[in-house]
Amino acid sequence: MTRTILESATKTVTIGFDEPFCVIGERINPTGRKKLAAELEAGDFSTVERDALNQVACGAAVLDINAGVVYNSNPNPNETEPPLMRSIVELVQGLVDTPLCIDSSVPGALEAGLAVAKGRPLVNSVTGEEDRLELVLPLIKKYNVPVVAISNDDTGISEDPEVRFAVAKKIVERAADYGIPAHDIVVDPLVMPVGAMATAGRQVFELVRKLRDELGVNTTCGASNISFGLPHRHGINAAFLPMAIASGMTSAIMNPVRQVEMEAVKAANLLMNADPNGGEWIGFSRVIDAVAEGATFPDAARAAAAAGSGRGGRRRRRG
Amino acid sequence: MTRTILESATKTVTIGFDEPFCVIGERINPTGRKKLAAELEAGDFSTVERDALNQVACGAAVLDINAGVVYNSNPNPNETEPPLMRSIVELVQGLVDTPLCIDSSVPGALEAGLAVAKGRPLVNSVTGEEDRLELVLPLIKKYNVPVVAISNDDTGISEDPEVRFAVAKKIVERAADYGIPAHDIVVDPLVMPVGAMATAGRQVFELVRKLRDELGVNTTCGASNISFGLPHRHGINAAFLPMAIASGMTSAIMNPVRQVEMEAVKAANLLMNADPNGGEWIGFSRVIDAVAEGATFPDAARAAAAAGSGRGGRRRRRG
Repeated sequence: MTRTILESATKTVTIGFDEPFCVIGERINPTGRKKLAAELEAGDFSTVERDALNQVACGAAVLDINAGVVYNSNPNPNETEPPLMRSIVELVQGLVDTPLCIDSSVPGALEAGLAVAKGRPLVNSVTGEEDRLELVLPLIKKYNVPVVAISNDDTGISEDPEVRFAVAKKIVERAADYGIPAHDIVVDPLVMPVGAMATAGRQVFELVRKLRDELGVNTTCGASNISFGLPHRHGINAAFLPMAIASGMTSAIMNPVRQVEMEAVKAANLLMNADPNGGEWIGFSRVIDAVAEGATFPDAARAAAAAGSGRGGRRRRRG
Repeated sequence: MTRTILESATKTVTIGFDEPFCVIGERINPTGRKKLAAELEAGDFSTVERDALNQVACGAAVLDINAGVVYNSNPNPNETEPPLMRSIVELVQGLVDTPLCIDSSVPGALEAGLAVAKGRPLVNSVTGEEDRLELVLPLIKKYNVPVVAISNDDTGISEDPEVRFAVAKKIVERAADYGIPAHDIVVDPLVMPVGAMATAGRQVFELVRKLRDELGVNTTCGASNISFGLPHRHGINAAFLPMAIASGMTSAIMNPVRQVEMEAVKAANLLMNADPNGGEWIGFSRVIDAVAEGATFPDAARAAAAAGSGRGGRRRRRG
């Protein structure tokens, strides 16, 4: 049974076929967030702190850390990203105990993150492009960590799922040449917007099943891509996630501070027998109630977690 | 490609692997609805009329008709159900143009409904029990209609999905002996409550795939059974339906007057490429907007449908 082990200093998260779906929080990423980028350039990490705490409260099992900011004062990411990655990783692992996902296209930033991350972080990502394989796989081997493998190569992103499968297979084989096992490769089969390509959903469901059956690998995706450009994106995302999970997908890089999507993931866990006594669902139903009464989702999630441990404490005192 | 053809006097609905998911409205059923039962005994059909119109407005493609009422004045369903079934079928097919599903465990009521139903209704249901096979299959052959086959037999409902598959296979084979083709059998693999049996979801997903791959049949289920006894049932149902659809389920008997579940079905259709230009989803997003502004779901659905045809009319006038 394929198990991808991620660790922080104190906590282990397993991505696997019989595990709860692994939610990798995507929020700590200045790409497309101008305000966050400006804050980081000014040395203000308050948004990063809030994003870390809120994502974990809402149910992220892993936090993605991307330091891909372009400073006004220095447009060279090879100089700016490595020290910023180091700072954010150190900050976040001082705040929360979830494993991290070190996310960069700058090799120096990957190495900077890996050097300071405790435990066994996930690396995001390698592709099937020759230069990426040669840069990233040695780092993966050196640090003995798992990696997200994105199924595009030097020819770009193919619309043909067979080509994307072949790229994933090539990455798994090249990793094996470095002594990296398939269970440390988490394949991203690439999710296209269904508004632009009507077969996008079916392609992913079929690819995930094939990747699992034939390569034995765990899988991930940027889940919200599926709904790009369409109205009521949450409704599409909230159907896509359970469908991907039923097809065998084992993780996603997504925004956990969204009740609709997280409710879909929690219900899918219950339906996949990854919440056997329903305790997670019943706990989450208290969060839904509190949000219906006006609480924010992170506040409701924090309160439910505190009430849960409070009750446990009282039971212990009674015993 | 398996296609189950249902017809009213004027409309054809196809249940099939590449068709939109077929929503069979479950509301016209006095079981567990004391008020409705009393109304029917008193000859008041106003609730039936409203249920028919609202279910169709909300997106039911087929309406289930169950006349299983126990009158205070006459407790013998063999006497009361056949005339009531005839009355309701005639009433409903005068109001709406969707095909019907004639639902009874009383053979006389099935025959009464089949005698007056126009087009090609679905029959609900036959089981693997010997007496049911011998009573129902000749009716199916006589009227040349499709039938729901429920996978329990004289030994009851097995918790073992392999046994339930074997019962479905037996029904398909017995039907073939009567000259009834597999594409006219819609198998209900039986959905257990996930709160009582933690494997209930996975069982259904695996059974649906196997029924489709090995018997080539369409499938249906009583969808809301999955969430029985648990809090926030809509959230579980709204994940279950897309997961069942991704696994190959092609219809469900469900309450269409529920926005959350219908939103999940519409999004799943989009993701299965059964709404290729996204027109259905975009139309449904207007319904979501109107409900958010305070409209009831049936009223919002009716208004969106009217506005849609209104715009079409204006375009035609301009052309």
